[in-house]
Amino acid sequence: MSEPEMRPKAEKLDAADELAGMRAQFVLDDTVYLDGNSLGALPRSVPGRVEDVVRRQWGSLRIRSWDESGWWTAPERIGDRIAPLVGAAPGQIVVGDSTSVNVFKAVVGAVRLAGGGSEGPGDGEGHAGRPGPGGRDEILVDATTFPTDGYIAASAARLTGCTLRPVTPDEVPGALSERTAAVLLNHVDYRTGRLHDLPSLTASIHAAGAISIWDLCHSAGALPVGLDEHGVDLAVGCTYKYLNGGPGSPAYLYVREAHQPRFDSPLPGWNSHADPFGMTPDYTPAPGALRGRVGTPDILSMLALEAALEVWDDVSIDAVRTKSLALTDFFLECVESYVPEGEVESLTPSPHTQRGSQVALRCADAGNVMRRLIDRGVIGDFREPDVLRFGFTPLYVGFGDVERAARVLGEMF
Amino acid sequence: MSEPEMRPKAEKLDAADELAGMRAQFVLDDTVYLDGNSLGALPRSVPGRVEDVVRRQWGSLRIRSWDESGWWTAPERIGDRIAPLVGAAPGQIVVGDSTSVNVFKAVVGAVRLAGGGSEGPGDGEGHAGRPGPGGRDEILVDATTFPTDGYIAASAARLTGCTLRPVTPDEVPGALSERTAAVLLNHVDYRTGRLHDLPSLTASIHAAGAISIWDLCHSAGALPVGLDEHGVDLAVGCTYKYLNGGPGSPAYLYVREAHQPRFDSPLPGWNSHADPFGMTPDYTPAPGALRGRVGTPDILSMLALEAALEVWDDVSIDAVRTKSLALTDFFLECVESYVPEGEVESLTPSPHTQRGSQVALRCADAGNVMRRLIDRGVIGDFREPDVLRFGFTPLYVGFGDVERAARVLGEMF
Repeated sequence: MSEPEMRPKAEKLDAADELAGMRAQFVLDDTVYLDGNSLGALPRSVPGRVEDVVRRQWGSLRIRSWDESGWWTAPERIGDRIAPLVGAAPGQIVVGDSTSVNVFKAVVGAVRLAGGGSEGPGDGEGHAGRPGPGGRDEILVDATTFPTDGYIAASAARLTGCTLRPVTPDEVPGALSERTAAVLLNHVDYRTGRLHDLPSLTASIHAAGAISIWDLCHSAGALPVGLDEHGVDLAVGCTYKYLNGGPGSPAYLYVREAHQPRFDSPLPGWNSHADPFGMTPDYTPAPGALRGRVGTPDILSMLALEAALEVWDDVSIDAVRTKSLALTDFFLECVESYVPEGEVESLTPSPHTQRGSQVALRCADAGNVMRRLIDRGVIGDFREPDVLRFGFTPLYVGFGDVERAARVLGEMF
Repeated sequence: MSEPEMRPKAEKLDAADELAGMRAQFVLDDTVYLDGNSLGALPRSVPGRVEDVVRRQWGSLRIRSWDESGWWTAPERIGDRIAPLVGAAPGQIVVGDSTSVNVFKAVVGAVRLAGGGSEGPGDGEGHAGRPGPGGRDEILVDATTFPTDGYIAASAARLTGCTLRPVTPDEVPGALSERTAAVLLNHVDYRTGRLHDLPSLTASIHAAGAISIWDLCHSAGALPVGLDEHGVDLAVGCTYKYLNGGPGSPAYLYVREAHQPRFDSPLPGWNSHADPFGMTPDYTPAPGALRGRVGTPDILSMLALEAALEVWDDVSIDAVRTKSLALTDFFLECVESYVPEGEVESLTPSPHTQRGSQVALRCADAGNVMRRLIDRGVIGDFREPDVLRFGFTPLYVGFGDVERAARVLGEMF
């Protein structure tokens, strides 16, 4: 098929798109923005809210806003707003810090939940222990992970006296043993867009008696996650991709309710204290998800995120997933139609069960091709060494955008 | 003396105040705001900047802003803007994360710089070592510290196999030994406002072969710190008090240039990698202060802070210190004049060499007294169990404010 066939098809798909109206809630222009998996577009609800936070809440109310504007409780309140998007009941997610910092909390916390590692008894008295025979002293990490997870997991391993073992997600079931303390996996691979089988891998991890940690950066807001349903132990994610929270907006930490009483954070800042304003020298962790908090929350970014999340009020994540798959299907179809054979190769799996909300195309001279695409108004990104990456945010990307992106891509060759 | 004498004195002091013009750069009202040591007032430069960041940089340029709007380099660029305020040459400070997270980086980093603790060799291979005979396995922490520093230091001690020993700053010289790896101290005590002797304590710590870490939350922006001059090894601080960065604005980490090649962060996120976009599985730390970075910087808060720091362009920290001492001197004088004898007792040392930029008054029923002061337009804060805390930000507090605050306080009894 070619342009005369694909354009009417795009129009038909757009006309039937039940999420088409959501696009008006975002600030967009005449480019095709397929980089929402790097930085989500600006929701229209954000600028006015941020102005209110700066001018009235900070400028006028000042410290009174910690109570009166709900600043103090923002991390758990906004966590509860993210919760339904990732299949979590309330009271299990707190927002704050970067994804990397949350990975650190999660990995060290997981080793402790598993009774693993060779730390002292946790009283700060310096009894450096060693794992007993048969102790859990190994952390498995996704070898194809976004690098920061691997770097931080290595640090957590070093500090808890564990060994870090990189394996691909497919290799996890075979690598699990009675030595495994924790397993850190990405729900969707940042480079290929491959969706990993969270329910089945989590079940394998549990069967081995280990703790699962899922990084949801590339899945939350794009597809159903089902944290509670599938028994995930700990999870982290950023909020600036499909959740549109803004550049560097705070990340979040999920601690399954059943684990909360034993969750033992390596970053026990005063915000995680049971009585933070008691300012006692002894640390007593707060109950519930709050013990994942650390220091003073970053209010400007946090409340911008809260405004951004309002776009989800009337959207079901299942509808988003349905549209996401239709978008990536249609993009692959258009690429096949427009791009001369042999010029690009999809790294993204065809089966829907293995596909996130992005398409990665391997291509010669990909860096230059992406620059030329951007010059022509098609915004994706380039990942070393040879990957064109296109993210499809169902809330604001339409089928006409998809057709245009593939058509312009075809003109590159 | 009484009102007929103190008011003209305040007017005279205000007329001679060379920083009086700075007040116009802040959004203030008809209250007396003496809580800038909790949350600084809003600088007028901030709202317009934040609006530009949200609407144009995020809304319109989107991912291009990582380069074009200088987002990516913000942590070190803003660090260099803070540097002269704390007596540091460029290239030693990065901004990001909360104070608590930076305390963690600093304490673990200090133990490693000291060759202390009982960690493995740092290859993530899980060789949990033990300190050799005479090894440095003790961390001293200010027993009167803001609690989060103590909690985080305890976690750092536990993870590095060290013992945590709380001592008052006065006790530090006597407590130092060949076992001491690191010492974490507050430059100004958050409760009493006492200024500790940074040059002398740092020299003692060095004489014992240990690493000094200073928490500057209550001194940066209020008085000269002299990090480089006094040989401080590591320092952390928040930016929302005397630096007026906004609620929960990002904190900073100082790593002395000489230590940077060996600074080994426990939070080696991808932003601290020598080639972050290479996305290699192996971690190679960036040179310089950048290795104190962790994850994606929180841009909204970071660039609000950058705008807030512009008020310092034409201000010397020495002039700020001179006015700060004049303000607290005058406040103590007014309190003596207006408050009936025996009702309050200053916890803040009289000698200028021991005084920060706040005055703490012990007072019966302090919680209620502070509530009534706030109702009368005098904003300070209450700290458990019996402390009225008044912070004096020289950039926007005048002598008339000081006189009014003390006069209203006198009317409480």
